[in-house]
Amino acid sequence: MKKIVTIGGGTGQFTVLSGLKKFNNNLTAIVNMVDDGGSTGVLRDELGVLPPGDIRQCLVALSRSSEEMRKLFNYRFEKGSFKGHSFGNLFLTALEKISGSFEKAVEEAAKILAISGRVIPVTINDTRLCLRLKNGQIIRGQSKIENSFFKKHKGFTKLFLEPKAKINPEAKRAINEADTIIIGPGNFYSSIIPNFLVTGMPEAIQKSKAVKIYICNLVSKPGQTDDFRVSDYVRIIEEYIGKPIFNYVFFNNKKPSQKISSRYEEEGENLVWFNNSDFKGIHYKTVSRNFISKKVPTRNQVDKMKRNLIRHDAKKLAKALSLIIK
Amino acid sequence: MKKIVTIGGGTGQFTVLSGLKKFNNNLTAIVNMVDDGGSTGVLRDELGVLPPGDIRQCLVALSRSSEEMRKLFNYRFEKGSFKGHSFGNLFLTALEKISGSFEKAVEEAAKILAISGRVIPVTINDTRLCLRLKNGQIIRGQSKIENSFFKKHKGFTKLFLEPKAKINPEAKRAINEADTIIIGPGNFYSSIIPNFLVTGMPEAIQKSKAVKIYICNLVSKPGQTDDFRVSDYVRIIEEYIGKPIFNYVFFNNKKPSQKISSRYEEEGENLVWFNNSDFKGIHYKTVSRNFISKKVPTRNQVDKMKRNLIRHDAKKLAKALSLIIK
Repeated sequence: MKKIVTIGGGTGQFTVLSGLKKFNNNLTAIVNMVDDGGSTGVLRDELGVLPPGDIRQCLVALSRSSEEMRKLFNYRFEKGSFKGHSFGNLFLTALEKISGSFEKAVEEAAKILAISGRVIPVTINDTRLCLRLKNGQIIRGQSKIENSFFKKHKGFTKLFLEPKAKINPEAKRAINEADTIIIGPGNFYSSIIPNFLVTGMPEAIQKSKAVKIYICNLVSKPGQTDDFRVSDYVRIIEEYIGKPIFNYVFFNNKKPSQKISSRYEEEGENLVWFNNSDFKGIHYKTVSRNFISKKVPTRNQVDKMKRNLIRHDAKKLAKALSLIIK
Repeated sequence: MKKIVTIGGGTGQFTVLSGLKKFNNNLTAIVNMVDDGGSTGVLRDELGVLPPGDIRQCLVALSRSSEEMRKLFNYRFEKGSFKGHSFGNLFLTALEKISGSFEKAVEEAAKILAISGRVIPVTINDTRLCLRLKNGQIIRGQSKIENSFFKKHKGFTKLFLEPKAKINPEAKRAINEADTIIIGPGNFYSSIIPNFLVTGMPEAIQKSKAVKIYICNLVSKPGQTDDFRVSDYVRIIEEYIGKPIFNYVFFNNKKPSQKISSRYEEEGENLVWFNNSDFKGIHYKTVSRNFISKKVPTRNQVDKMKRNLIRHDAKKLAKALSLIIK
């Protein structure tokens, strides 16, 4: 069985893992550690733990345990002092407090959820994502950056981690041993790129002999990636990694129904598109399909985060990936 | 293996189960459902669940899972919005919310904790403990009653549940099938007696052919049982049950060290004692030993409850019980 590593965080990574686990049981999820919004943010601030939210999503994606257990991990309290908190986040937080280590907490939770595969924090250093705007102002914190319209301020000069964070040796090993590495989809500057700000990550990816696949986002992020075409996403990730690395780039080529598109357009999102001319002379192969899920997610009223209204279809992605990962 | 049922709630029941599980794997804990203080009280009030606290303690006592898992269930958050809440309580609360039933939540938690034996709520009706004082005033809620000095008000006329609660059929079955029933120790009026206020419980106990053992408390509860001798506890429980039922009564006959006794006396507690003449013409056998634990528990700073400073020794109790339960 091919060794597959996915890199990202959030719902995008959850989708990729959920699809892939049906045809591969050698999956490793490497997860960014900059999340500081919603339930995760409160737990970091109040209890000084590492961010559990994205890790939890990957654990649930890979869980082979009962539907009940998976529901439990994703359950959000609806009222009272706990309102909006996900139970799985509390679980990882309590485990970290008891074991004294986030890695041990993740391992123990992985056992309880009977996961097939592994979930690895990209770093185990406590770090925050920061963004220096062109006007010199610094925005500190992933959730603030995620919600900022930095293009309005003529963009930024630097996205960085403070304090600096070193690659988790387990992540390095997994990348080194991988046959296939899949990056994305996910919030570009606040979820995907932060993985490559970790010292040692660009080098690990560069050295890896794995087949490297990028899965491009479906829609843009207002104020951040508004006019990005597929090739822009690829170019920028590769700039952060330090050299051209992708063998394949997956992107959606289907315009969704008016009903769906009007909903995301209302929120300032645009469908990520491409011109065929963008791909002249490229070093990667393109795989373009209809990757859009027919399910329009309903927003959880108590979730403290804003989630995308348009999502990748886990099955469609996995099917296309399986043609490459043989 | 003899079928043993313990009836109670709180630390007392935890101690009995912890000791017994080493020589019996056919234990059933029947737990009162009136707790409404501390972490449990907040969860009941805010989220409308049944009281998880005492159930959690029994689950942990019977758990065969890792030390880590047991620690996790008893872990109390130390800071922030969750301060004082026990993780296990949140676990049972989230499970109840997902499964829609407290019984299912307990079953699922029992699986996860790999418990040997069973933990059964005495009722699955949502009810509150109430106390009508001689002056007509009614105190509502277990935690208020637990902390009230009702003797100052010339005592009470009635301890009752509101609304009325019916015996859980699973509890009834366990009592019917039991070879041995152990009642106590525990807070007398707020933890032990409430079990027998549940409609159907006195009848179930009366009908049972099991050997029935009462384990008497070590110290009195100020303002409630101040001058009770061992025989008073027995007499009053049997009044609530409706007839003499005990075959054995266990009580401590060792006066603890000055160091320990001065600590509980400071809090108004007295060692429960006896006169040999109290036992003239009784229908039960007495088993008196040194049952006091040498460990003086340190109080958890974030626990919202006041816990006893003097406790039964689980091993000593289990050893004495094992001579009867063969």
